[in-house]
Amino acid sequence: MLRLNRPYVGIPTFLRARTVEDISNLDAMIAVMGVPFDEGSPFLPGTRMGPRALREQSLRFAGRPGIYDVTTGQEYLRAEVEGGLISDVGDVDIFPTNPEKTFEGQTEMVRAILGRGALPVVLGGDHSITFATVRAFDEPIYVLQFDAHTDYAPITTDLRYTNGHAFRHIAAMAHVKQITQIGIRSLRTSPEQVADIRADGNRIVPVKELRDLGPERVVASLPEGARCFVSIDIDVLDMPLVPGCVSAEPNGLNYAELRAALQAVAARLDVVGFDVVEINPPLDVPTGATSYLGVHTIIEFLGHICAQPRWRARRDGRAAR
Amino acid sequence: MLRLNRPYVGIPTFLRARTVEDISNLDAMIAVMGVPFDEGSPFLPGTRMGPRALREQSLRFAGRPGIYDVTTGQEYLRAEVEGGLISDVGDVDIFPTNPEKTFEGQTEMVRAILGRGALPVVLGGDHSITFATVRAFDEPIYVLQFDAHTDYAPITTDLRYTNGHAFRHIAAMAHVKQITQIGIRSLRTSPEQVADIRADGNRIVPVKELRDLGPERVVASLPEGARCFVSIDIDVLDMPLVPGCVSAEPNGLNYAELRAALQAVAARLDVVGFDVVEINPPLDVPTGATSYLGVHTIIEFLGHICAQPRWRARRDGRAAR
Amino acid sequence: MLRLNRPYVGIPTFLRARTVEDISNLDAMIAVMGVPFDEGSPFLPGTRMGPRALREQSLRFAGRPGIYDVTTGQEYLRAEVEGGLISDVGDVDIFPTNPEKTFEGQTEMVRAILGRGALPVVLGGDHSITFATVRAFDEPIYVLQFDAHTDYAPITTDLRYTNGHAFRHIAAMAHVKQITQIGIRSLRTSPEQVADIRADGNRIVPVKELRDLGPERVVASLPEGARCFVSIDIDVLDMPLVPGCVSAEPNGLNYAELRAALQAVAARLDVVGFDVVEINPPLDVPTGATSYLGVHTIIEFLGHICAQPRWRARRDGRAAR
Amino acid sequence: MLRLNRPYVGIPTFLRARTVEDISNLDAMIAVMGVPFDEGSPFLPGTRMGPRALREQSLRFAGRPGIYDVTTGQEYLRAEVEGGLISDVGDVDIFPTNPEKTFEGQTEMVRAILGRGALPVVLGGDHSITFATVRAFDEPIYVLQFDAHTDYAPITTDLRYTNGHAFRHIAAMAHVKQITQIGIRSLRTSPEQVADIRADGNRIVPVKELRDLGPERVVASLPEGARCFVSIDIDVLDMPLVPGCVSAEPNGLNYAELRAALQAVAARLDVVGFDVVEINPPLDVPTGATSYLGVHTIIEFLGHICAQPRWRARRDGRAAR
Amino acid sequence: MLRLNRPYVGIPTFLRARTVEDISNLDAMIAVMGVPFDEGSPFLPGTRMGPRALREQSLRFAGRPGIYDVTTGQEYLRAEVEGGLISDVGDVDIFPTNPEKTFEGQTEMVRAILGRGALPVVLGGDHSITFATVRAFDEPIYVLQFDAHTDYAPITTDLRYTNGHAFRHIAAMAHVKQITQIGIRSLRTSPEQVADIRADGNRIVPVKELRDLGPERVVASLPEGARCFVSIDIDVLDMPLVPGCVSAEPNGLNYAELRAALQAVAARLDVVGFDVVEINPPLDVPTGATSYLGVHTIIEFLGHICAQPRWRARRDGRAAR
Amino acid sequence: MLRLNRPYVGIPTFLRARTVEDISNLDAMIAVMGVPFDEGSPFLPGTRMGPRALREQSLRFAGRPGIYDVTTGQEYLRAEVEGGLISDVGDVDIFPTNPEKTFEGQTEMVRAILGRGALPVVLGGDHSITFATVRAFDEPIYVLQFDAHTDYAPITTDLRYTNGHAFRHIAAMAHVKQITQIGIRSLRTSPEQVADIRADGNRIVPVKELRDLGPERVVASLPEGARCFVSIDIDVLDMPLVPGCVSAEPNGLNYAELRAALQAVAARLDVVGFDVVEINPPLDVPTGATSYLGVHTIIEFLGHICAQPRWRARRDGRAAR
Repeated sequence: MLRLNRPYVGIPTFLRARTVEDISNLDAMIAVMGVPFDEGSPFLPGTRMGPRALREQSLRFAGRPGIYDVTTGQEYLRAEVEGGLISDVGDVDIFPTNPEKTFEGQTEMVRAILGRGALPVVLGGDHSITFATVRAFDEPIYVLQFDAHTDYAPITTDLRYTNGHAFRHIAAMAHVKQITQIGIRSLRTSPEQVADIRADGNRIVPVKELRDLGPERVVASLPEGARCFVSIDIDVLDMPLVPGCVSAEPNGLNYAELRAALQAVAARLDVVGFDVVEINPPLDVPTGATSYLGVHTIIEFLGHICAQPRWRARRDGRAAR
Repeated sequence: MLRLNRPYVGIPTFLRARTVEDISNLDAMIAVMGVPFDEGSPFLPGTRMGPRALREQSLRFAGRPGIYDVTTGQEYLRAEVEGGLISDVGDVDIFPTNPEKTFEGQTEMVRAILGRGALPVVLGGDHSITFATVRAFDEPIYVLQFDAHTDYAPITTDLRYTNGHAFRHIAAMAHVKQITQIGIRSLRTSPEQVADIRADGNRIVPVKELRDLGPERVVASLPEGARCFVSIDIDVLDMPLVPGCVSAEPNGLNYAELRAALQAVAARLDVVGFDVVEINPPLDVPTGATSYLGVHTIIEFLGHICAQPRWRARRDGRAAR
Repeated sequence: MLRLNRPYVGIPTFLRARTVEDISNLDAMIAVMGVPFDEGSPFLPGTRMGPRALREQSLRFAGRPGIYDVTTGQEYLRAEVEGGLISDVGDVDIFPTNPEKTFEGQTEMVRAILGRGALPVVLGGDHSITFATVRAFDEPIYVLQFDAHTDYAPITTDLRYTNGHAFRHIAAMAHVKQITQIGIRSLRTSPEQVADIRADGNRIVPVKELRDLGPERVVASLPEGARCFVSIDIDVLDMPLVPGCVSAEPNGLNYAELRAALQAVAARLDVVGFDVVEINPPLDVPTGATSYLGVHTIIEFLGHICAQPRWRARRDGRAAR
Repeated sequence: MLRLNRPYVGIPTFLRARTVEDISNLDAMIAVMGVPFDEGSPFLPGTRMGPRALREQSLRFAGRPGIYDVTTGQEYLRAEVEGGLISDVGDVDIFPTNPEKTFEGQTEMVRAILGRGALPVVLGGDHSITFATVRAFDEPIYVLQFDAHTDYAPITTDLRYTNGHAFRHIAAMAHVKQITQIGIRSLRTSPEQVADIRADGNRIVPVKELRDLGPERVVASLPEGARCFVSIDIDVLDMPLVPGCVSAEPNGLNYAELRAALQAVAARLDVVGFDVVEINPPLDVPTGATSYLGVHTIIEFLGHICAQPRWRARRDGRAAR
Repeated sequence: MLRLNRPYVGIPTFLRARTVEDISNLDAMIAVMGVPFDEGSPFLPGTRMGPRALREQSLRFAGRPGIYDVTTGQEYLRAEVEGGLISDVGDVDIFPTNPEKTFEGQTEMVRAILGRGALPVVLGGDHSITFATVRAFDEPIYVLQFDAHTDYAPITTDLRYTNGHAFRHIAAMAHVKQITQIGIRSLRTSPEQVADIRADGNRIVPVKELRDLGPERVVASLPEGARCFVSIDIDVLDMPLVPGCVSAEPNGLNYAELRAALQAVAARLDVVGFDVVEINPPLDVPTGATSYLGVHTIIEFLGHICAQPRWRARRDGRAAR
Repeated sequence: MLRLNRPYVGIPTFLRARTVEDISNLDAMIAVMGVPFDEGSPFLPGTRMGPRALREQSLRFAGRPGIYDVTTGQEYLRAEVEGGLISDVGDVDIFPTNPEKTFEGQTEMVRAILGRGALPVVLGGDHSITFATVRAFDEPIYVLQFDAHTDYAPITTDLRYTNGHAFRHIAAMAHVKQITQIGIRSLRTSPEQVADIRADGNRIVPVKELRDLGPERVVASLPEGARCFVSIDIDVLDMPLVPGCVSAEPNGLNYAELRAALQAVAARLDVVGFDVVEINPPLDVPTGATSYLGVHTIIEFLGHICAQPRWRARRDGRAAR
């Protein structure tokens, strides 16, 4: 019998997808995994509760065949939902006070997903986790970072794994061709980091530049169809949209701008994975608005990824097996 | 002696209006009533506390002769406030787990208000309540729904009274000529519901269409001076404006857009009643911002209704009795 | 590889037990199920989030072979945990505004569990749910109710399914031999209900009487080894212990008193099922203390049930199959 | 038709009593009034919301004929509730930054109540308000103060109206025969104040002394039937009972101890008025436990006052008029 | 050894500046002082915690040499931070219930700062405090008020020191040449106050006018280089930006608009001091977003003030001493 | 001029003590230091805010000469407060994701305090920090641990620095003669850890044993006058007393019991340092009750330490220098 399954009912997996405990059995095109890690947070912790809250809010989108844009009349994700092409592989195990060990497990988990041919969707956690996802990829990739901050702190003996360091690690990876940082605007940005980012061949796109150029022209500089990993720090959005994000900053993107940028990315580039980070549920407003918006972003971005011809070709090829 | 009556002082009735316990004694042009009902809520409950919180926040507008727009220099509601033309008739009685009984009482209460020639202003509660208000009207009316969601779920034996069903009930009422849904945008919208809404002769105005056309042209399709009931789901506003609304969605109207739309409605149509629903005070931010904005909307809409020649004529006619 | 599985990691099932979607496959001695229903709540809602919060807090007890009492050196639940004898069967589906339909599903679910020979542990939800659990039993049972309130409101046409009605329904069931209400103390108790309870052959044990007699003597009036269902309204505990319970009252039991009473029940009677209700997570203190204490109560009571010779005999018999 | 009037329904007056705007029309034996004043608070403000929260929580006791003690089988307040002998006269008007003006209004309001022969029940607000109530009495009275703190700060030119000063003012009033301070225990107590209190002929009863002697012997030193005003700072209760009281201290009374003390007071002395202060609703736990306990205390104390022969005689005399 | 000094580490002074207890020893160009006063607040109190919360959030900007605008590549405040030109002089002492005494101390403290040649940056507190700062200046000044409300209530015997009165006091000061009120928009604005403001020679710039003219043209009416005090009520910003401001109103400025206006002020006028008021930390969202934005405003405004030639000249002159 | 210095006024150092930035200049008998570290927390983080919250709440005890017990008439800490014998040395610097580095700094800081002959009072932070304090001592010491949990997890390559490991590290230190664990009661206690604790020569005193023996007899087994370090996990107190402690457990000590035990320790043993840990301010109730009680415990324990003849002798000896 069909169940109503209101969002407050039942065990929360992402979109009520099947859970897959042993990834070697994974048989889906999209694998959602959590990294409940916040030891790298510079001020108030709590993003460790991100994956759980995102799963809970995702239930509000469950029980329907995809999503629907009433303005355009277009549906998204119907094939993926009805075909059971999304799985929830659970969370990386966390070793408190031993981040290297945690990150090793995370990298292994992403590799296992990639090994099964699935697209990893990673739920943070704070932004320190992204390097451990990116290093799991073997082939060359571009990295797009939506963020208010550069997260490019110098790596020293004493300090190397905070959420301010991730993109310095990523920039140094051989298979990462370039990082494009979109939405950077914090007054607390370090000019030294900015200089390094550029000297290392990466690109910063402040909010004003994104608005002046428009998203299509911003991504036009990247090769059509290039493989890319997208990292979405929720603080790329304007402060009032993310009351449950400690690192929120004024003058950020509104949701339509972020959506348009992600849509442009999905259209031009081959998105091989993405993460959404820095949502802090214990410090969110009581309605959980920030987690809901995080899920909204994930699902709409997924929708645009799966609406591309390159994705549909894969899906059809897979079905034809 | 005049009292300061700071908002934290005294018993909270709406705008410190007189309470009228027996509506057969009602002698006001505007009757505020509450429906503290949230059994139809699909996720987190709490809107049952809406009427109480709205009354409390309304005290911040009390003690002055109406409201004042410093940009235009125009005053509103002075005659209504100074003339004591607003009464608070209290709340519908709630029969938990027996929504039909609750809704019967609600319909009776609205009928009693209408029977006294007053305009009902209904404080929700969740959106399931609106059908019980609308069915209290006898003469033909148009219904305008400001909402992020269509609330047009199919009515089945097992499920018929949630906040997703109200407008399917309303559409079926003989005296309802058409529903106009403004602000619809949720990704969780059902294409089947959209098809039904249109097949049933109703109209959906997504946010983009409202912006493209402007509010005057949106309402121009309705007959000048037609009687209409307006239902305002506070989630028509953009997420950051309504942190205390569980069903908030991104890409909503800003306050100026909602105000302009309501003003256009008041100018063209004869508003015979309205409600404001889906404010969830226990889950609001601690300052009560969502309740305050709900009251702000009510009072400004009332101001525009009462500034119309048709209203002033009634008021003068009444005074002349 | 063994995982640390800190409580904030992974999908929350009760005690990280296996989930069983189709109860006809249930192969455990203990089945945990949730009833996220709060439409019967008389004041602030929110207990619908109880099952989810209880599961989350239960993770703090997971990953170890049972529990351990350092004072006595005794271990509990080791065989049940190591043997995988506990399963989580998920939640009853909820039909908002149609409580009869919800309760039917609940009764079926409990019956299915009983049909598999397992002990149902029901996570509320408000107290209105208990009658739908109790009516699922076929054989004669005693009912023990730990509660600050009698919940024995008269059943009328208009009002019959609130959390104040459950035990009037239960008292009328043919297979229920007697209700024993322990901890009753609310000043809002109705003398008429008290009279009815006694006239109907049931027993009220106020806090003072429990303290004066001691729990063993209180339960001594029930036949040794009789089958009983135990319903624990968390408000039986004293107010400060349950900040996240809306119906909390002063002068309640401390935890040691409740534990001793439950232990006495487990020792004398054959507990065939129990529930824990009225925990309201959205209104709890931010640490979730009330949910944690609810889980603590469940696990310790389970421990005492499973430490009885009658349980061990069943377990051994089952193992011998 | 009888209404259910759940606590979340309707306009909150104390116990849903009639409101009396012009006290010269007061025709009740008990008059509840609020003093939403917190300008005298030494740390976090918010007690100004006390009267509103207490009224809201009082609705949980409304709709029944008094209260009932299931242990003793005794009912209280039935005659007062059924006879409509309780009225709510609203709040004192507050003049922010002008406490003297506020206190003048408060004293007048209490005098007006006394002038109508009613018992004033004053809802705070912080403890600075008590002197303005006490000075409204004309005849000699004893003052009993239940409190963790002495509130006997020296009065200086610059500082005289905080919640630490009230009882120094009271001690200086000609008609106040003696102050008895029960529950004093704060480590932040000033030995100089203690010395002054005793030198001024007043009495301090620390928690230990109350427990050693028992409440009857504590009040035995006061003349049988003497008129007394009772001021209950909710911080006399132990910290966990009053999470919404900023001045809470450990080692306080449990509720049963406070109840027993108030019962002893009501039995021996002629209580001519009382207040309950220092409840801070905006900082309370989300269930409002502290406000509920405040109302519980008020209603149970009222119950014991009205159960005395001296009160019943007055009530009967009044009925005979 | 250099410390990381994460924001949660250490004693919070503003920007980790040196504290100066005796202002006669002050040797900085900028002196930050707090006025933790909220007795003038008309609804919910709590802004007394503003200075503490602003200092805590300021730590997020500490430990770096000023701030950096990634869009323009411009740095600000480097000389001030590296040169130790900012000091924290602590808070004004507060005399609860004696606002005149508090304000006297405040005026003295500002005078002492001015006497040392430093720019006072005043952390509120509610808006009632501004007059006590402004009266400390001796030479003629213009006052710019960023605010949703006029705060121009008539001064009466009974009521004179609330946050609605400050600018009536200021307007009456001999050395204040004109008040310019920017952002006024509250519907609760009094037309009588507006008339008085204009009659007294002051100027109101509603939001629409600011947008129509642009900030440069708004300030162009003030004499180039004129001395001015700027008072920033955080409610000048739009509601969603300031969830922790009780007086927030819709239709306010977005952050970029406020920043542009402040930048225009700094460019044209000689800012001799400023305050930021009406942030209510106990009622803010848990991330402290409103306090963070308050600090962001302060630091960015300071940056623009210190980037002016007139300031650099002073700084250089000072260094040359 | 003397300041009132209400708790919400000014920069929060512990008890408004002088801050000492360079410990080599420390000239006090008592040095308060913070360790805002919570990376070792097993569930919800946030104790990193402990030192800041404890300092803020300590201001409520400042501005008076010590504390006063009204029951006994005894004063405490007068000499220490009036003599300025308490200093606040600020916080250990934290290196997120590098706990070893953080702990090295902590050990150095404690050594520096000890090197100046002062008693270290350490504000946590979670319980993982205690080993880094204890290892700073050179001479033999006993360790007394007040705790609900044993914190004696086995040390492995992957996991060694959580708050469950501290006492396994401590037990292995050559200068630690024995650990006495008082208050252990968690059902989640590991029997293997208990066996190890005892096998390693340490002692567990469950709550029941403490109550049965009384605190004096519990400490009697330790040599009179022996040097000891006391570690107070606030979860040794009963759940309702510590709503802001994530690891709270039922059946804990009430405050009077903890106080009596600490007094017995101070009387018999030479307390050479202590810490208070596991207070989680962001998750506390809004009044900050848990932080207040933490400070209350610190100050009362300090009072008893300083009331001992051995301390007074040192103080006098010092004064005589």
